[in-house]
Amino acid sequence: MNSQNQNTIDVFFNPKSVAVFGSLRELPGTAFWVIKNMKAFGFSGSIYPINPEPAKYNEVMGLKVFSHLNECEGTVDLVVIITPPPTIPDIVRECGQKNVKAVIIMSEGFAEAGKEGEYLQNQATDIARRAGIRIMGPNTFGSVNTSNGLVTVPPYVDNEKLEKGGIAFCSQTGSIGPHQMPLSDWAYPLSKMCDIGNKCDVDETDMLDYFADDSETSVVAMHLEDVHDGKRFMEAARNLTSRKPLIILKTGRTEAGARASASHTGSLMGRDHIYDAALKQAGAIRVNTWRELWEVPKTFYYQSLPAGNRFAVVTFTGGQGVIAADAAADAGLTIAEFKQTTVDKLSAYFHRLGNNPVDVGPAMSDSRSQSASNPFAVVEDVSVIVLNDENVDCATITFHAGNQMITFFPEFLNMMDRITDGVSKPVNIWLYGTSLSAMEDLSRQFQSRGYPAYMDLDIAIKSLGYAAYYSKTRLDGNMV
Amino acid sequence: MNSQNQNTIDVFFNPKSVAVFGSLRELPGTAFWVIKNMKAFGFSGSIYPINPEPAKYNEVMGLKVFSHLNECEGTVDLVVIITPPPTIPDIVRECGQKNVKAVIIMSEGFAEAGKEGEYLQNQATDIARRAGIRIMGPNTFGSVNTSNGLVTVPPYVDNEKLEKGGIAFCSQTGSIGPHQMPLSDWAYPLSKMCDIGNKCDVDETDMLDYFADDSETSVVAMHLEDVHDGKRFMEAARNLTSRKPLIILKTGRTEAGARASASHTGSLMGRDHIYDAALKQAGAIRVNTWRELWEVPKTFYYQSLPAGNRFAVVTFTGGQGVIAADAAADAGLTIAEFKQTTVDKLSAYFHRLGNNPVDVGPAMSDSRSQSASNPFAVVEDVSVIVLNDENVDCATITFHAGNQMITFFPEFLNMMDRITDGVSKPVNIWLYGTSLSAMEDLSRQFQSRGYPAYMDLDIAIKSLGYAAYYSKTRLDGNMV
Repeated sequence: MNSQNQNTIDVFFNPKSVAVFGSLRELPGTAFWVIKNMKAFGFSGSIYPINPEPAKYNEVMGLKVFSHLNECEGTVDLVVIITPPPTIPDIVRECGQKNVKAVIIMSEGFAEAGKEGEYLQNQATDIARRAGIRIMGPNTFGSVNTSNGLVTVPPYVDNEKLEKGGIAFCSQTGSIGPHQMPLSDWAYPLSKMCDIGNKCDVDETDMLDYFADDSETSVVAMHLEDVHDGKRFMEAARNLTSRKPLIILKTGRTEAGARASASHTGSLMGRDHIYDAALKQAGAIRVNTWRELWEVPKTFYYQSLPAGNRFAVVTFTGGQGVIAADAAADAGLTIAEFKQTTVDKLSAYFHRLGNNPVDVGPAMSDSRSQSASNPFAVVEDVSVIVLNDENVDCATITFHAGNQMITFFPEFLNMMDRITDGVSKPVNIWLYGTSLSAMEDLSRQFQSRGYPAYMDLDIAIKSLGYAAYYSKTRLDGNMV
Repeated sequence: MNSQNQNTIDVFFNPKSVAVFGSLRELPGTAFWVIKNMKAFGFSGSIYPINPEPAKYNEVMGLKVFSHLNECEGTVDLVVIITPPPTIPDIVRECGQKNVKAVIIMSEGFAEAGKEGEYLQNQATDIARRAGIRIMGPNTFGSVNTSNGLVTVPPYVDNEKLEKGGIAFCSQTGSIGPHQMPLSDWAYPLSKMCDIGNKCDVDETDMLDYFADDSETSVVAMHLEDVHDGKRFMEAARNLTSRKPLIILKTGRTEAGARASASHTGSLMGRDHIYDAALKQAGAIRVNTWRELWEVPKTFYYQSLPAGNRFAVVTFTGGQGVIAADAAADAGLTIAEFKQTTVDKLSAYFHRLGNNPVDVGPAMSDSRSQSASNPFAVVEDVSVIVLNDENVDCATITFHAGNQMITFFPEFLNMMDRITDGVSKPVNIWLYGTSLSAMEDLSRQFQSRGYPAYMDLDIAIKSLGYAAYYSKTRLDGNMV
């Protein structure tokens, strides 16, 4: 964490001007698409297309094409390169002459491809270092910043809308980004995103330092295959986790995974138990699946941290309550024992209530407690009682979505506002139902109101378990 | 497994005539909706609405309303009851007089609700036993049979289309059924489904026996909280698993879960390690999450069993390959070592191919191996080589779906036909992408062609792992 690093990395996300080297033909993976995507996502800085045959194009999307960087007026902050590997050292040299600060080498065919590529990668890295240029990549899809519309990815993108939020994502695989994942359909609350690729310069530790200080980021999620420098990484991770949660999917856990990793990154196989202990010591949360890497940060982002691990859950059937209790135990949560006043209030509300997990099914099908206007009014009444019990630190509440219930969705949101009114405990939602599109729509709506919604009960509960764990390690560790 | 049981249980799924006791007002949870749903799903047998005030209704949906069962002409095979608990013993008595063979008591408020309910449940059960009637429930949503449109559920249903397939589902929670889950959006390949509720008569063992002999069922999935009679269950499970795979989610795994289960079912807490050992001994596959209970059976249903546990995977990035290798190791699969001829063919096809996991990303972005008409042609070429390696027993193949690729979907299906042509090894698909609706659509299309598709790479691989495990236990156990 030094301001030098902060400034140099920030150019990858907040450049005022971007030059793009590569083909301007309208084919997937070209500079054409990088420029098209930047414009489509609303990036308002200057964009300079650079191509050795400017005469062939003259203009692209209203932008003048240059043959060299030194022809661009004014400064160029960030350069994106999608040209064949042998051309790249010279382009990086050209960047140095123009005082460019940051370069994304998107092309592949470097260290990951063999000796020849490794040589070119080292050459480009040396030139950049001497010129004071930071490199992201090679073999990367670059960076995304939801607050200024910077999206450097070269393939076609389905949906040019990204939700602005506080979760930063850093990955060692190119399977992230708006051209790879349904970020828009999820309305995923993203601050910034990057794929660090071959990590010839910018690595995971640089990104931890950057995100620790980034005021737009409150939660960091990271996919990691290896760590360049264990000591630096541990310092950066500890610093970050003393301020923000860090969720990590470290792959190559198993011998087979480590071998697969070595074969495509050339990185050394690390013994997993060492990573596991180190991540724990650094206060990071280690998840095991790709789905969890995306799902767990949502509870951290949308909700506060729990004061303890005493968990309550409101379900629609007793069977769901048992599944929830199992998931809670797995996640390190205990099923909260309600105070006697809560038990009394619940059983006065409906005679079969009073236990935790709270099965509201019987009360919902009882005509006396059924509201004519909202079949789920019971969920509100019961959840208010439960969340105000001081023995409860966190909770998951169930909703059901089908096409016939779409008219109730606005009321579901209001219910959650009333349920959580005056309560500073994390609450998330488990959502199931009969229509995928209705479920996805309700999920987006809940999240736009600040309530993390999950299609898997066990992942909803696991997320709260991690939140309780993080909350406790912060307190125990006396971190800054 | 005796033909007596087979006949009596079959009435719950294949009745020629059904009477429904309950309110005929158009409110959720009433007899009205049971009848409406049966008609909507195309049940062609006779339906008799029974209500103590027939004059109030005269006709309901074109059906004459009767006040008592003995007024119905001809035989009544199955009776569905949704009336208050105190009325039920008399109705069951009436069923006995009419020689009814099977009764679904849908109402709740019996043993699960306290002493009074337990008394009524026992009373109804005794009457039924003496009259030779089988009861499903109480506290159940009843049964579903996709081959005749029998759907006894009482709530509103979004989509009245169910996919006919070979997976049978039996549950102890009411959270299943077309009114609870997106079965239609999933095009879930279902044969029959039932919720056995309080199990006052028909229990899990009856269902295992029934599904073992049911020619329309080739895979059985079961959600279980407790087992009535361990010895009977083990015999039935062993018999079933010697013929068909049995996937079980046994909840109440943890102490908290077992306590939650006891509080809502009144069932005794069983120690989980005993269940675990027993299920293993019975040759059942035990899964841990609700999602897995639904996802794992698909690979068993659509594909053959693998001859061994040597696994290959085709991914679009090296990072995905590492995740796949970890998941394979967790699932008890080994990463297949390709034969030299396979390595030669792959590296002749593209110089960076030859390893398993197979990362086709570089070949796909290489213009020489790119087909103008289909960006995924590489996947086909490579997968054919991989699947024909005799060291490979099973495989997962990756596809990517976005809105811009919808025009390629028919070709994706043809590709899978060609990839698996002449290959009798199980193959499933991992599907990721940028548009949820496109992914869901492609998933349905793949499955309609017999290729199980998954949104989670780890669950796709886990499913193959279970298939290899089941295949091995069948061979090792010398089962019938």
